[in-house]
Amino acid sequence: MLMSLLVVGSIAFDSIETPSGRVNEVLGGSASYFSAVASFFNPVRVVAVVGRDFDKSLLDFIKEKGVDLNGVYVEDGETFRWGAKYHKDINQRDTLFTKLNVFQSFKPKIPEEFVESKYVFLANIDPDLQNDVLNQVRNPEFVVMDTMNLWINGKRDSLINVLKNVNGLILNDSEVRELTGEYNLIKATKLVKEMGPEIIIVKKGEHGAFLYADDNFFFIPAFPLDEVIDPTGAGDSFAGGFMGYITGSGRLRVSEYKKGLVFGTIAASYCCERFGIERFKDLLKNELDERTEKFLKMIKL
Amino acid sequence: MLMSLLVVGSIAFDSIETPSGRVNEVLGGSASYFSAVASFFNPVRVVAVVGRDFDKSLLDFIKEKGVDLNGVYVEDGETFRWGAKYHKDINQRDTLFTKLNVFQSFKPKIPEEFVESKYVFLANIDPDLQNDVLNQVRNPEFVVMDTMNLWINGKRDSLINVLKNVNGLILNDSEVRELTGEYNLIKATKLVKEMGPEIIIVKKGEHGAFLYADDNFFFIPAFPLDEVIDPTGAGDSFAGGFMGYITGSGRLRVSEYKKGLVFGTIAASYCCERFGIERFKDLLKNELDERTEKFLKMIKL
Repeated sequence: MLMSLLVVGSIAFDSIETPSGRVNEVLGGSASYFSAVASFFNPVRVVAVVGRDFDKSLLDFIKEKGVDLNGVYVEDGETFRWGAKYHKDINQRDTLFTKLNVFQSFKPKIPEEFVESKYVFLANIDPDLQNDVLNQVRNPEFVVMDTMNLWINGKRDSLINVLKNVNGLILNDSEVRELTGEYNLIKATKLVKEMGPEIIIVKKGEHGAFLYADDNFFFIPAFPLDEVIDPTGAGDSFAGGFMGYITGSGRLRVSEYKKGLVFGTIAASYCCERFGIERFKDLLKNELDERTEKFLKMIKL
Repeated sequence: MLMSLLVVGSIAFDSIETPSGRVNEVLGGSASYFSAVASFFNPVRVVAVVGRDFDKSLLDFIKEKGVDLNGVYVEDGETFRWGAKYHKDINQRDTLFTKLNVFQSFKPKIPEEFVESKYVFLANIDPDLQNDVLNQVRNPEFVVMDTMNLWINGKRDSLINVLKNVNGLILNDSEVRELTGEYNLIKATKLVKEMGPEIIIVKKGEHGAFLYADDNFFFIPAFPLDEVIDPTGAGDSFAGGFMGYITGSGRLRVSEYKKGLVFGTIAASYCCERFGIERFKDLLKNELDERTEKFLKMIKL
């Protein structure tokens, strides 16, 4: 399937505390969230790494959604672990620990049957690895990437290099500011465009997100939730909704990117309803569609 | 003109410092901003108080827009003064001083020619005075109010009393939280509705605003600005755009409230482009309309 969507990212064990409670060593990682969501719209192929301690049956619910896990490697060592504690203002969190473990020495090898992937999402990993991936995939039509402050500050040159070779960038407001040194998000986003990507999506947590493409801005609020149980993975779910929708549609144009933002928004809202990736274990496509309809009414004049 | 819009609020001298510069003792106050904007859409009548030190020619540009200033009283003493310094994150400010002066003992007397006003906006003043005003106006059809943390905490009972007698409330996110004790804005807004107003508008600064009416939410982003020179008065300008539009249209229904939010948003954006009320001295109706068109494209799928 040439139209398949390849994601290269992390699979992790997350330990999370929020005002609603805590969980220990639950399935997490950008590739997990992304593929759980994107697979609603389009077949997804995952390249990631786990340790010997990882029970692959944890990924069964993703596999059942048609996600190809043939690029999930098991290496000697422990799986990537991450811990965080969220504040009462749920947009704020403290990272308690980041143990890269097997991720430290990960060199993503794109399986032969994946190298023709037309669509690629480079989740938040070391930009050197993102470059490696791009060198292995043959003529991708549409590549979007994520990143984080760790790479913006620590591997700037590599990151700048990847940016030149992608179509789109999805990141959050504080990351856009760090990447450009510009506080104003509008100015900052225009500066990012000069770095390469023709499509930029800036996520603002509970304040929604915006798209910059073809010199136009498009703004969307977040779906309002009575209660946010755990926002972990919301950004990757957003990316999954966006990339899943537009690559499933196959129409690479601004009107579709806008719809992609809607599906990203809805996916992110579901993500926050339970701890970790739980909500996606039983989320149905018609629930996604129902909330999308409800949301469209909330933003239509 | 029975359809006229009455506003009772403040006229002040503001001293403002932002990252873009500073100004000293410039025209400010909720009634000034509100009427400068609302008068684009509907005749406005102002009730307010100034001191002997106030040069009424400062209000000439508002008067030229058809605003009736016959309710602006001059009393012995000095005009209300307010000073603030904004942070680099322009959503944050420190109030440096608040000198109520003649406002301290102000008892708004609604001129006889204003008491039949159909539409009333109670700007942010002591809720006891807001109650006084409501007792003087005969059968208003549509009353909307503003308030602030000072009254939420200091005059809660009076405020609760006014809330029972208004159709709408416009306030910002932190005020909704303080008023209800609920951090989640969706839950908080529903709690406010139980206090009386059937229409609630929550402003979130650069993150836009939302409307809650008829058990439905409607969300709108802020108009994106490359540069915010001074956000002082943006909230009152927003209220002016909202109230001006819907009272000018005279159609009191949700579809119109949504459009009112758009005009409020656009007015607030212009407000931020210069210090104090400067931008409204030469803003043209066709500029307002042009930006409105541009904005509608930014939020339309």
